[in-house]
Amino acid sequence: MPPVRPPRYDAAQPLQFGGALPDPPAYEPSAAVVLPAPLDRTTSYVPGTRNGPRELLAASSQVELWDEEVGGDVHDVGVFTLPEMDLTSGSVDDAVRAVERVGGEILDAGKFLVTLGGEHSITSGLVAAAAKRHPGLTVLQIDAHADLRDSYQSQRHSHACAMRRTLEHAPVVQVAIRNISAEEVDALPGLRTRIFYDWNMRDDPQWIDRAVDALSSTVYITIDLDGIEPGLMPAVGTPEPGGLSWRELTTLLRRTFERKAVVACDVVELCPIPGMASPNFAAARLVYKLLSYKFGLRR
Amino acid sequence: MPPVRPPRYDAAQPLQFGGALPDPPAYEPSAAVVLPAPLDRTTSYVPGTRNGPRELLAASSQVELWDEEVGGDVHDVGVFTLPEMDLTSGSVDDAVRAVERVGGEILDAGKFLVTLGGEHSITSGLVAAAAKRHPGLTVLQIDAHADLRDSYQSQRHSHACAMRRTLEHAPVVQVAIRNISAEEVDALPGLRTRIFYDWNMRDDPQWIDRAVDALSSTVYITIDLDGIEPGLMPAVGTPEPGGLSWRELTTLLRRTFERKAVVACDVVELCPIPGMASPNFAAARLVYKLLSYKFGLRR
Amino acid sequence: MPPVRPPRYDAAQPLQFGGALPDPPAYEPSAAVVLPAPLDRTTSYVPGTRNGPRELLAASSQVELWDEEVGGDVHDVGVFTLPEMDLTSGSVDDAVRAVERVGGEILDAGKFLVTLGGEHSITSGLVAAAAKRHPGLTVLQIDAHADLRDSYQSQRHSHACAMRRTLEHAPVVQVAIRNISAEEVDALPGLRTRIFYDWNMRDDPQWIDRAVDALSSTVYITIDLDGIEPGLMPAVGTPEPGGLSWRELTTLLRRTFERKAVVACDVVELCPIPGMASPNFAAARLVYKLLSYKFGLRR
Amino acid sequence: MPPVRPPRYDAAQPLQFGGALPDPPAYEPSAAVVLPAPLDRTTSYVPGTRNGPRELLAASSQVELWDEEVGGDVHDVGVFTLPEMDLTSGSVDDAVRAVERVGGEILDAGKFLVTLGGEHSITSGLVAAAAKRHPGLTVLQIDAHADLRDSYQSQRHSHACAMRRTLEHAPVVQVAIRNISAEEVDALPGLRTRIFYDWNMRDDPQWIDRAVDALSSTVYITIDLDGIEPGLMPAVGTPEPGGLSWRELTTLLRRTFERKAVVACDVVELCPIPGMASPNFAAARLVYKLLSYKFGLRR
Amino acid sequence: MPPVRPPRYDAAQPLQFGGALPDPPAYEPSAAVVLPAPLDRTTSYVPGTRNGPRELLAASSQVELWDEEVGGDVHDVGVFTLPEMDLTSGSVDDAVRAVERVGGEILDAGKFLVTLGGEHSITSGLVAAAAKRHPGLTVLQIDAHADLRDSYQSQRHSHACAMRRTLEHAPVVQVAIRNISAEEVDALPGLRTRIFYDWNMRDDPQWIDRAVDALSSTVYITIDLDGIEPGLMPAVGTPEPGGLSWRELTTLLRRTFERKAVVACDVVELCPIPGMASPNFAAARLVYKLLSYKFGLRR
Amino acid sequence: MPPVRPPRYDAAQPLQFGGALPDPPAYEPSAAVVLPAPLDRTTSYVPGTRNGPRELLAASSQVELWDEEVGGDVHDVGVFTLPEMDLTSGSVDDAVRAVERVGGEILDAGKFLVTLGGEHSITSGLVAAAAKRHPGLTVLQIDAHADLRDSYQSQRHSHACAMRRTLEHAPVVQVAIRNISAEEVDALPGLRTRIFYDWNMRDDPQWIDRAVDALSSTVYITIDLDGIEPGLMPAVGTPEPGGLSWRELTTLLRRTFERKAVVACDVVELCPIPGMASPNFAAARLVYKLLSYKFGLRR
Repeated sequence: MPPVRPPRYDAAQPLQFGGALPDPPAYEPSAAVVLPAPLDRTTSYVPGTRNGPRELLAASSQVELWDEEVGGDVHDVGVFTLPEMDLTSGSVDDAVRAVERVGGEILDAGKFLVTLGGEHSITSGLVAAAAKRHPGLTVLQIDAHADLRDSYQSQRHSHACAMRRTLEHAPVVQVAIRNISAEEVDALPGLRTRIFYDWNMRDDPQWIDRAVDALSSTVYITIDLDGIEPGLMPAVGTPEPGGLSWRELTTLLRRTFERKAVVACDVVELCPIPGMASPNFAAARLVYKLLSYKFGLRR
Repeated sequence: MPPVRPPRYDAAQPLQFGGALPDPPAYEPSAAVVLPAPLDRTTSYVPGTRNGPRELLAASSQVELWDEEVGGDVHDVGVFTLPEMDLTSGSVDDAVRAVERVGGEILDAGKFLVTLGGEHSITSGLVAAAAKRHPGLTVLQIDAHADLRDSYQSQRHSHACAMRRTLEHAPVVQVAIRNISAEEVDALPGLRTRIFYDWNMRDDPQWIDRAVDALSSTVYITIDLDGIEPGLMPAVGTPEPGGLSWRELTTLLRRTFERKAVVACDVVELCPIPGMASPNFAAARLVYKLLSYKFGLRR
Repeated sequence: MPPVRPPRYDAAQPLQFGGALPDPPAYEPSAAVVLPAPLDRTTSYVPGTRNGPRELLAASSQVELWDEEVGGDVHDVGVFTLPEMDLTSGSVDDAVRAVERVGGEILDAGKFLVTLGGEHSITSGLVAAAAKRHPGLTVLQIDAHADLRDSYQSQRHSHACAMRRTLEHAPVVQVAIRNISAEEVDALPGLRTRIFYDWNMRDDPQWIDRAVDALSSTVYITIDLDGIEPGLMPAVGTPEPGGLSWRELTTLLRRTFERKAVVACDVVELCPIPGMASPNFAAARLVYKLLSYKFGLRR
Repeated sequence: MPPVRPPRYDAAQPLQFGGALPDPPAYEPSAAVVLPAPLDRTTSYVPGTRNGPRELLAASSQVELWDEEVGGDVHDVGVFTLPEMDLTSGSVDDAVRAVERVGGEILDAGKFLVTLGGEHSITSGLVAAAAKRHPGLTVLQIDAHADLRDSYQSQRHSHACAMRRTLEHAPVVQVAIRNISAEEVDALPGLRTRIFYDWNMRDDPQWIDRAVDALSSTVYITIDLDGIEPGLMPAVGTPEPGGLSWRELTTLLRRTFERKAVVACDVVELCPIPGMASPNFAAARLVYKLLSYKFGLRR
Repeated sequence: MPPVRPPRYDAAQPLQFGGALPDPPAYEPSAAVVLPAPLDRTTSYVPGTRNGPRELLAASSQVELWDEEVGGDVHDVGVFTLPEMDLTSGSVDDAVRAVERVGGEILDAGKFLVTLGGEHSITSGLVAAAAKRHPGLTVLQIDAHADLRDSYQSQRHSHACAMRRTLEHAPVVQVAIRNISAEEVDALPGLRTRIFYDWNMRDDPQWIDRAVDALSSTVYITIDLDGIEPGLMPAVGTPEPGGLSWRELTTLLRRTFERKAVVACDVVELCPIPGMASPNFAAARLVYKLLSYKFGLRR
Repeated sequence: MPPVRPPRYDAAQPLQFGGALPDPPAYEPSAAVVLPAPLDRTTSYVPGTRNGPRELLAASSQVELWDEEVGGDVHDVGVFTLPEMDLTSGSVDDAVRAVERVGGEILDAGKFLVTLGGEHSITSGLVAAAAKRHPGLTVLQIDAHADLRDSYQSQRHSHACAMRRTLEHAPVVQVAIRNISAEEVDALPGLRTRIFYDWNMRDDPQWIDRAVDALSSTVYITIDLDGIEPGLMPAVGTPEPGGLSWRELTTLLRRTFERKAVVACDVVELCPIPGMASPNFAAARLVYKLLSYKFGLRR
């Protein structure tokens, strides 16, 4: 007797990136993998990043697959979306380790990894996985906050320490920074980080090229969405006036992809505002921009 | 060479009913099937039922699996959640036909079917499928609106006509009705429907038993969430003061399950209010009540 | 040359009560008049009653014209909606006087007047107009607050003084009261008011009849929406737990209309919650209940 | 006996453009006509454009009548606001035809027409009306989306096809485009359209003049509000990062009015966000800018 | 030279309970103390109890000081509001210990303590403090959830374990329970708890008296706001249909205060819904009811 | 016997500016004083500035104390936050007088005063206090609206008249103006004001220096938050497209502080949007920028 199969029909997959694809790709042939990792433990002020990946993926079904900037449609390289990691139990340390292991397996399979947060704390695990496989890797961080505290509220894996932990695995170039503490400034001389402060980086018209120059040939990109101006991206836990315009952001990213080998990215700290779709949509578009630059640009 | 497999990890399944189940069930051995069918075409006034199934399923992960009323946990009968039907293209007629075909296959496999709307228009397709397989079936409708118009705004498959279309397949017992038009009242004598009006049904203390008595031995239940009092359930397209309390609703449902063979249900018209979780949660709890009554009561 | 006329087409009238009527009635033949009077000056805590009439009227287009309780459709007596009074300039005194004058003209024309607030302060002007034309009139007030302060924050026309001002024109029966100050309690012996407190009025199963008995034969009804339980009606400036259920409210109103000559009503203090349609809808339904009881009951 | 007249009083007209005008103008002497046409049928993702015209008009009462840029107050040319078209029944085809007929009558009367949507689908009817009366007319479209699909979800009048339908009546210049499909790109060579892509149009500092140069002497302007940057205008159905700043938008519009004869405009796709007034206000201000440029500039 | 003093003026104290009191009381003579303790660490599903005490206190300024039920105004016994405890750093264990110490000092000073949460986890610390000072104390818990898990997501101080921890200090009577797990049911025989399940407790008309009878003579009351019906109280982290009406809640509380010595209370899990004041107001009113019953009833 | 003291513990002070400071400063040694003055009486359109100071202060706890632009942390000069002024009773005149007296005392004590509104009407009282103590003082106003009406809706202290009243005490330089009435334009020749209109001020690349040049050596700064672009600052009562970017705003302020003696500031008209933290956060950051420029720049 044949097995009973579920009925077949046209289905939406609200939690697949670009949910309207007629044929969702399989894991093995896919060149890119989207990993939702909504850690949400220590974010101060406005909670809710736990819902970030779900809302980003729901919005992604409206993103047009053809990108006029790269002049092509990259979705046919295969974009496979994994189910949401369950990071609600255990410590943040456990979560960072889990993300490192999972990210490592994906990189071992030769995929381009885009992780969706959740809190910034996961980045150190992802960079650890990438740096182990790509010696000499550097990190491009787009962020309002330096996140260089050694500990915060007695925790070493708070989002406020995300890049201090990351620096244990690779040097970092930090862009759009406009929130840093005296303690972090004091620690700077001993850290492998180069900061482009939002308030003065634009005084050099070549600042974007200088930021890209500061990276090594192999790059991990981490985008805390509060690096973007809060008019466009109010849906973050600790919004900061200033930050990158969409034009600055995409220019910086395109040049990085044009000149460097980007092996993995993350987009973190989306904290959806109920009833306001536009930030979720912008985050989804940003993820597709990363994919279009990765697979659509001629290097 | 072995195939490349995605990494394994603890995963949340936000769009599986009761998303926190450690082992999501397979289709074949599952006794119950949840079918998300978010048709959203003609609802007047407040749009947004398209997001109903997604939010209901997301909320369902918080529902406790043990039900103190039936004194048991029914999830191990297997509750399989299908992916969301894509009903955005084609006519409402097409959607009703698609739902009828899919629902029919599920019933043919011997499953207990719980469909999640979306608009009420899908009910006639589902009842058609059920009535074809269960001659003599009657429908229990919980609803603020009679939905007996023959057409509305030139459409015969508007949600305002949902039960008129359904009556073409089976007789209906309508409970909690408090919105009906002169045109519908005029048509009543020719229709196989029995109405329990919200404003006076409680004048008979035995009204719940009388409503159950009016059903045949095999029953389909359709719950338009606006049948519930809007204090508890404001997240519907056309809320109406009055309606069933949670106690009345669960008593009516339990008695129906105790005395009748319920073969399928639907829960429709959830229209989530951004930032307000409580209606979504109540709808998820209602679905689990249906499952608990179906599989947990000794008949 | 003929005058240039605007084009004709099917039009929605979002600010006409029951906006979908194909032929909006003219003033002269209409038996009922709806007067939007959104005074919004002194309400404490949550502001926003200024938008109450607009949202109530927008919601009213979804109210079914046939009322199953009275077994009829009363809209053909003619329900004429006036434009919104502009009460933003001048003092509250000015507004009360303006409302008294306008209300008086409508009553002189023999219409049944339903005024939509806005703050409760307008009621004293409306009752003044009604009492002048109907000697011996009494007022039925449904409200969480006694509103009997002689002045509040140095103002004698604050909403907190609405009924103290009203008592200068007619005696009042107050129902569902659950917020009263020591100062008001002290003043009670000298006031022509009878209070049914929410916390104990139901101890007498005949309380509704007793409340109606306390009215004279000619009645003005003022409904502060916070008299209704906040589960159903959260959209008020100072919500108070307790209050009338929809069933209690409609029973009280129906009996009043059955046994008394109701000459005018107001429905005040709707303070819409953005994104939540259900309270606006309940308020619109309440207005249509008033009309149905007035014109649909056989007395 | 004289007819009974409604009482007279200072009235707000929340649904008249610039609602606070002491003397609302009559149709015949008015030079400009505002036509609310809230078609809302096929918009994907976030529904709600049906409420766009109502919220825009409510916000318009706060727009200052004097415009410092043109140095004058144009409201005394007469700005007449028609009641909202009822486009809820019938097909989208019917709606497009109705809008074409009504728009045509207004143009025949020599009025400057500003239509408020609702969905972009109405534009093809309006352009058809304008092109019939102004041979050689071209269209200036400000939009995030090319809207050039031949059909979408089996419908030829989806908003995603708005400009493909419009091209059947007049050539189009498209500005701020940042969402286009492979299918549309393939069709471009055969279409009478000139696209200024958002990602690179600013590479030419003269881009605004070049866009205006591409128009013929008689122009229809259609503004899909998602053409504006989503920071300023998040209240649209499918927001897209990028887009025109307020300064770019007003400069482009002023130059168009300075150099061309603009005969009609539409402003579409406002999808209000509950509780957030600023996008509604910006849309209202934009409409008054169109009127100020039309009647306040010396050409 | 005299010290420089800040200027004096009429001040609102938005974070004092009953913020509008002309003379805020001093600590020493106050009979009641309000302690805001917004622990917010482990709540699943909808985050945000951190803002609960702040919003409750802001709403409390609208609560009328005279209570018509007890026929008096108790505020002159002195109600002193402490500043918000900072519980954001350290472990939940640390927070529970801190709350136990602080609560103990307040009880030692002979005050009636009302603690405002935040998460339910704090209750075990407060009951520990109370039970140490009042041997034989029992706890009345009003709650939708049994909260009897021994650990949840690897944590023994999760809100899901709140009452299991509390049972280590005193027996508990649990009312309105409608969410309990199989694991908790299995553990019941060994626990000093008596459960009144929401689904059947009302089958005994004397259920309220039976619940009070089950308490010893000295009582601590803990109110998880989700014990109240979600129509009235939607602003909780895990709302559950069913629960106590306002009338049931106040009757149960009044009888407890009439017949027992209540030494302390807490009101926890308020999770404010942005833009919706009514749940915050109901919570503030509930706190004043506790104070009115404590100090206004003749025992 | 020693007095009973409240227990001591780590406390958050949600309504102290920079609420997380371990040791809240005393009044006497503090160099800066924050005065919350939430007058909310006459604002048209969207009400709610009454909650502005509370939400700004709550957000301020997330502002980093170290400012990378001035290269220092100024909080140790002492920033003392006064309790909220209660301006709900009495006339607006009374409120303006109260604010003048209180502001004067603070200035007499040699403090730098930052007042938080509430409505713009308070500014004339504050400028009166400052000008009396600093003859020759000029005012820098950042605002969308000229606010130069002599009266509005019969009131001379409406927010629409704020700067007309202020001009009675000191000349004003107005920046980012984009909403002015014909009546105000007519009055300009007789007024001591210099306007930089938003639509053309940037045509002069030196406009910021020219604005600063127009000030005398001693300056009061008033910032109506609607002077900022509504993308970043939508939470105002009457948002206007256009306005200052964060970069323009901070450059203008820094140059003013570098070249002038600024003696006091106010930040007014924050009208929080429920559920959207980003505007509140930007306002808090702006206040800390004012403090950092005042105390952290080397002049």
